[in-house]
Amino acid sequence: MKDINKFIEEVFNKRYTCKGYDSEKQVSDEDFRTIIEAGRLSPSSFGFEPWKFILLKNRDVLEEIKPYAWGAHASIEGASHFVLILARTPKHMKPGSEYLRHIKSDIQKWPDDLLKQRSKKYGEFSDDDFDLNSDRAVFDWTTKQVYIPLANMLTTAAMLGVDSTPMEGFHQEKVNEVLVKNGVYDKEDFRLAVMVAFGYSNREHREKTRREVDEVFEVFE
Amino acid sequence: MKDINKFIEEVFNKRYTCKGYDSEKQVSDEDFRTIIEAGRLSPSSFGFEPWKFILLKNRDVLEEIKPYAWGAHASIEGASHFVLILARTPKHMKPGSEYLRHIKSDIQKWPDDLLKQRSKKYGEFSDDDFDLNSDRAVFDWTTKQVYIPLANMLTTAAMLGVDSTPMEGFHQEKVNEVLVKNGVYDKEDFRLAVMVAFGYSNREHREKTRREVDEVFEVFE
Repeated sequence: MKDINKFIEEVFNKRYTCKGYDSEKQVSDEDFRTIIEAGRLSPSSFGFEPWKFILLKNRDVLEEIKPYAWGAHASIEGASHFVLILARTPKHMKPGSEYLRHIKSDIQKWPDDLLKQRSKKYGEFSDDDFDLNSDRAVFDWTTKQVYIPLANMLTTAAMLGVDSTPMEGFHQEKVNEVLVKNGVYDKEDFRLAVMVAFGYSNREHREKTRREVDEVFEVFE
Repeated sequence: MKDINKFIEEVFNKRYTCKGYDSEKQVSDEDFRTIIEAGRLSPSSFGFEPWKFILLKNRDVLEEIKPYAWGAHASIEGASHFVLILARTPKHMKPGSEYLRHIKSDIQKWPDDLLKQRSKKYGEFSDDDFDLNSDRAVFDWTTKQVYIPLANMLTTAAMLGVDSTPMEGFHQEKVNEVLVKNGVYDKEDFRLAVMVAFGYSNREHREKTRREVDEVFEVFE
């Protein structure tokens, strides 16, 4: 096997969800920067990058979300970096929004004719192909995109020897309220999708378990 | 900068969505195996691994989905490997299902007391925290999990120098129907979430565009 294949398979075999952190150990600025770069450079449907990453350092806010975030206690207590991954609200994701104009014109710099063509395509996709017919459906679709940088940040951490914890174990509505009330972000623009912590474990972890390849992969000829 | 940080940032800067494949060039078995391993070993909420990966080789089925999959034409025509990423149907993801029992008992091998505790937690999470109150909401949540292996497969391909195309550009309902009708999978168990192709590009691609870091990342102190 080539070295790079071996390295990759080892990384994926080793990565696990950290359940307790050594609060004395900090992730270096360089490693954290690379983790955020992995998020920032991730792909997304139509290239809309409908995310924002917030490094939440404020102890008071962290303590205030704790009662509504059972899956985050160990990370709040000991992780080096605690990150909120936000998804854009449906307002921004609807065909014709100012945010989508910004992405398509200012960032992707599509020429006018292609821009119109792509906008039409997105309208069809949204109405018809993926049937994004409610705010909930739009938000869930947006959040799917946001799980791509989440995955890339976890994998990058593992490649750097940094432990991590992805967290869905929180009450979405309540944690969102606390964050908005404290001015962490504007509820018109963003909603909390998922959280992720980085640091160094202070304990052994359970052996990794996964279904074998013949249970998850098939060839249809 | 350390070599590994440099390597990772280069990989994420280089990865892009391939728009046209050289149909003469095949991804090696070894590389494809590593890509599937990256998917298989991915994390998911509660470790439920609610996915299946199908390498679709059948030309007739590929041609039959084409009219309903505008985003897949280039991949159907030239990619070396065309993969369907399926998500489990809500039937399997509801608290108490046989599938979840299989994962928790046979795969994760939780002892009885912890198993009960975790099942209770999942029930609360599902009913309350994430408000998974309809089949659509359950399926969308399941699909979020499935975007984690998608991301890891794309990143792994990039590390191996393999080009790739994630595809949402298809009519979900219609493509699903064609696949089920042809016996690719059982509609009781799975639904198509997203597709991804691997191969080697036959053209130059647009320069990568992303918002700068100050537009996607903030610190809240």
